[in-house]
This record gives sequence, C-alpha cells and structure tokens, in this order.
Amino acid sequence: MTERVHNFSAGPCTLPLSALEEAQAEFVDYQGAGMALIEMSHRGKHFVAVYEEAIALVRSVFGVPQDFDVLFLQGGATLQFAMVPMNLLGDGRKGGYVNSGTWAKGAIADAKPYGEIYTAWDGADCGYSRMPQSAELVMQSDTRYLHITSNETIGGIRFCEWPQVDVPLIADMSSDYMARPIPWDRFDLVYGGAQKNLGPAGMALVIVRKNVARDNNRDIARYLRYDIHADKDSMFNTPPVFPIYVLGKVLKWMQEQGGVEAMESQAEEKAGILYQAIDNSDGYYRCPVDAGSRSVMNVVFRLPTEELEKAFLAEADKAKLLNLKGHRSVGGCRASIYNAMPRAGVQALADFMATFRSSNRG
Amino acid sequence: MTERVHNFSAGPCTLPLSALEEAQAEFVDYQGAGMALIEMSHRGKHFVAVYEEAIALVRSVFGVPQDFDVLFLQGGATLQFAMVPMNLLGDGRKGGYVNSGTWAKGAIADAKPYGEIYTAWDGADCGYSRMPQSAELVMQSDTRYLHITSNETIGGIRFCEWPQVDVPLIADMSSDYMARPIPWDRFDLVYGGAQKNLGPAGMALVIVRKNVARDNNRDIARYLRYDIHADKDSMFNTPPVFPIYVLGKVLKWMQEQGGVEAMESQAEEKAGILYQAIDNSDGYYRCPVDAGSRSVMNVVFRLPTEELEKAFLAEADKAKLLNLKGHRSVGGCRASIYNAMPRAGVQALADFMATFRSSNRG
Repeated sequence: MTERVHNFSAGPCTLPLSALEEAQAEFVDYQGAGMALIEMSHRGKHFVAVYEEAIALVRSVFGVPQDFDVLFLQGGATLQFAMVPMNLLGDGRKGGYVNSGTWAKGAIADAKPYGEIYTAWDGADCGYSRMPQSAELVMQSDTRYLHITSNETIGGIRFCEWPQVDVPLIADMSSDYMARPIPWDRFDLVYGGAQKNLGPAGMALVIVRKNVARDNNRDIARYLRYDIHADKDSMFNTPPVFPIYVLGKVLKWMQEQGGVEAMESQAEEKAGILYQAIDNSDGYYRCPVDAGSRSVMNVVFRLPTEELEKAFLAEADKAKLLNLKGHRSVGGCRASIYNAMPRAGVQALADFMATFRSSNRG
Repeated sequence: MTERVHNFSAGPCTLPLSALEEAQAEFVDYQGAGMALIEMSHRGKHFVAVYEEAIALVRSVFGVPQDFDVLFLQGGATLQFAMVPMNLLGDGRKGGYVNSGTWAKGAIADAKPYGEIYTAWDGADCGYSRMPQSAELVMQSDTRYLHITSNETIGGIRFCEWPQVDVPLIADMSSDYMARPIPWDRFDLVYGGAQKNLGPAGMALVIVRKNVARDNNRDIARYLRYDIHADKDSMFNTPPVFPIYVLGKVLKWMQEQGGVEAMESQAEEKAGILYQAIDNSDGYYRCPVDAGSRSVMNVVFRLPTEELEKAFLAEADKAKLLNLKGHRSVGGCRASIYNAMPRAGVQALADFMATFRSSNRG
C-alpha cells in the first residue's frame, strides 16, 4: 500500500490513485497481449479502443456537443497559442485578447506573428489581481474571437462568470479544464494542457467547433492545421499514446465522482476551506486577489513576511504538505487543488495553517 | 513473469523488457516520494534528475558533440518537417530535399509554406526502390541544407552511406535513430519521433548544432523556435515527462548492450537473417528494394500472391509473430526489427518463413 503525500503542485500534479494503480497493474502486459500498451501500434485494436473510449469520455464527462471535434494534440497549451490565430485569423479578421496575467501574455505574444490582434482589457493596470467585467471589455470591429484564460495558474484568478460578448469565446482552460461546465454555444474552441486536471504532461486537449476547424485557407504545415487533425481523428501522426490512455482512466474516475458538476462543487468546497482559513486569520494570511476573481484551483496567499513564508514552506514540507511555494515570478505561497486533490488534503493544509499561525506570530 | 510475444510493429513498437519492468515497479510511488513521477512538477528535483540523466545518456550513447543541443520536443517528426524550414530558411536560402518515399514527401509538403525548397533527387522514377548515389543529387546554389530521410519506414530503404554534398545534412532519423553512429561534422540537425528505437510516442528528439539553433530572425511563435527550447533546456513549457523518463531507461539498456555501435552490428546481423531467408527462398519471398538500399530496421517482402500474403499474416499471428502486415499504402509484409527486437524474435520469424514456404507452395 502506497503512503501518499499531499501534493499541491501546480502541474504536473496529483492524479487519482485508482488511475495510477490501474495503469501500473497493466503496464508491462496490457490485457494479456504479451506486450505493453506503449509498444502497440496506434492503429491496432487495443489502442484504438483506448482512444475511442477516451474521446467518448471527454464528450460525456464534459458534455461536449456533437458539432465539436475532440482532438488530442501535442505541444501543450503553448502550441495552441500559435495554432489558434494561424487557423482562425487572416482575411482582415482580428483576435481580441484579455490580458489577465502570465499565461494570457504568452497567448498574446505567440498570436502576434499570425494575425491582427488587440488587447480587449489589460490587467496590468490592477497588477493582475482580478478578471474584467464584461462591460469593461473594449471590443473592435471585425473581431473573430475573444481569447480568455479561464484560470490564471500563477496569479490565482479566474473568470467566475464567462464574459458576455458578441463574438465567440476561445479559452485556454489548462488549469481549470473539466472543473466546471461551460456553455458550449458561446465557445468556438477550448484548449488546455492535460497535466493538471486530466493526466500526464505531453498532450493538449483541443475541443473545436467542427466548422471552425475547417474554416482555414491559409498555407500552413499539416501538423498545425485543425482540419487535418479533425479529419484524421487525431491520428494524422502518432498521437501521445500514454497520456491519452491515462486521461481515459482519470475521466472514468471523474465520471464515478459525478462528472464535471461534482468536480465544480467539490472545487468550490475545497477552495472555500482554504479561503476561510485565510480570511479568518486576522490578516496573518492574505490573498492578493480580488474576492470576485478568486481561483478555486490555485489558491495564492502571502504571510506577514518573506521569512515567515520560508518557514511556512519548510514546515509544510516536513508535514508532507508539498509544493506550496508560489511561482518564482510572484513569490508567496500557492496551493493548487485540482480535481484529484482530496478534501482531506485541503483540510490538512487548513489545519496546518492554523497551527503554524499559532506558533509563529511573527 | 510476462510471456512476451514477438512484436514486429513499425512503431510504437517493442521496447526493452527491463525498461518496462523498472517503469512499472516505480510507477505509483516514485523512489519513495509518495507520488508518481507523472504527478511531479517538471521543475522539481526528481524530474530534473531524470531529465538531466536522459540528456547525458543521449550524448554518451549517440556520441553527440558539445556544440549540439539535445531537445525533447512534442509533435513528433511531423512538426519538425515544418520547424526545420521555419527556423533555417528565409533570406534567399533554399532547402534541398531527397524524395525517397512517404516520409520524405511529408517533409517536403510541410516545408513548402516556409521557404524556397527543391527536390534534389526524386525516387518516384524508380518506385522508391532505392536511395540515390551522391553523384545523382542535383544541388542548387544558395542551398542551406540537404534534407534526407535516413530510413524510409514504409518503403524499407535506407541510406547505407551518407550523401557527400557541400552543404550540411539534416536527417529525419525516426526509424533508425541510434541504430548507427553518424558523422556529426556533416550534420546541422537530426530529428525523429521517439516511438521506434527510443521510447513511447509523444516526443521528438531533436539534436541541433548550437549556432544553427540560434541563427533565426524570423517572427514565429515561441514553441516553434529552436533557440527558445535550447536556451531553456527543453523546459520552455512542460515537457513530455513520461516519454523522457522511459527514454532514459531505454538508453541505459542500450548503453549496457554496448551503445550505438553494438546496435548497428546487431541490426545488421538481425536484418541479415531475414534477407537471407528471403534471398534463399528460390523467389518465393521477394524483397522489392534494391540490394544496396535495404533497410536494416524495416524489412519489406512479398509472397507469390496476395492470397498467400493473407494466409502468411494469419498464421504468423497464431505463432505469436505479430504486426507483420505491410503499411496499408504499399501492402505486402514488413518486419520492423528495431533495436529492442531480440535476435530470437528475428530467428523465430525466419524459421516460420521457411516452414510456411514448405507448407504453402502456392
């Protein structure tokens, strides 16, 4: 029996233990085939079954309508930063972007070579401490889409409400993928790296409206075209076999838990425990994020001094509460509590926070 | 104890059993950390150690000089078809390409949007049954590189000698990566998908001369730039953690076997067994490839009739000699005998071929 630690890593991160144990059990000899799944042709019957089940689970767990394609691509969310404008812009169409922090800035930087883009709202003015209200978005004519980062992993903010605009939304959902249902009629495309809520690193899950995937007449390489991947069912070239396989197991676990709706209510409950620990600490712990934009995946907080933060992280480590250090670009502490983080882990952290505060008045 | 089949899949394909068993043993609880490696931050000490060892093993096993960078990227060899010209062409520089079959055609198709390219030799004229001699290559002025596919997985041909040209070589080595040493002074870049000789699908290994990686002033997205990946040690974004980890184990196995030189002599011996079985069959088995270009990784052969081929494949399956069907685009039979295919598997196939021939005179 494995003794598990509480792993608050921002990604790669905690996965459901059942998924890991199943993958381990059948790792060398997959279903009595005399070989491992990672040794099998991606066009053979075993992997095709794995692949088809993964697609079906994405559709059922996340409620993806039939007029969307589900694609398993490589290059992470980062390559999507470029593929979105490569495929969707051109012909005088503009991309509007919400600059909500580190990841949005990446999406903007990588879009620039491939089309006319503009910033519809800039969080720099408020130190990226919140997401915009819909009324604050300044949209230009001929806008093809509004690109948002639904949850900023580093900043610890999220869109609690989806923006209301007259153009389709495109969302980088890397850090809250399948942690909340989305209104598909308002989206043309959502994407994200798998390595937070969905499985191992090395894959991007792209869900794109079928006619949007095919609305591209630019001359670009085949790997970079949504239509090619969609027409070949993500088998245009050898797909990331192992991440797809583990994703299937994670989604089965998610389904058993009650699906995305259950993930959402669990996330709100877990995040609530930590925000309460912060808010009820008489200012000892401080969340640098506006209350209306607090992430339920990445809870960021500060202590009275950097010395206390250092001590906090060191003692947390000893208590097997791991990877609570904030991103190197912002400092402080961050608890990433993705779908697979058990409530018990979050409660252990809240208890630890109370104990640490009592013993370290600073 | 696992009963292993003989798996002649063209990729993903047989991996060393020791690598699989080690990965299984430590899958759920990595080195007593209380979590799996795929749950760990790619910037944490455990994965950084895995990553650094993998880089060191690539360098030592393949003899990579210090003036080359070793990059673990995503998108397979297919994305490299585009990244090579994106990064290396422009400014009036041309890319010369050898059209040696299916994969070379892919490289040519994906290069076209990103620079001036030309075909230095076209194998279509001989039905892709051989590679060119150096004297046959028609090179143009201002050529930046000659792109070759060192081994055509589907056609079953390879460059037995590297082309002698006045420009640097770039090779797609997907299907004979680390199966032979290469003269690094004549190469600017080699790349390939991992899923044949090196590990699981979902990763491309790119080995690029350091100054070449940085000789790019085109405005392209960050994921598509060699300099970005090189400057960030392949950690610009979350890398394909699990493929890198398994690659390390495969390379350790390769090192124990005697490195690339041992792989080369084993490959020649194993391929020799099959070509002898073909050549000594009084024309029953027929290799459609010129003797001077025969692959030692993918041995293609035909039987007297398609009906016999069908019977051959069905009986081979029963004998646990799996995945011998030729690629759907060319038909016939193909035995892929990559580095991890044991000599015993190849001998079993040769024996089966003799038995089948005796019993099925056609």
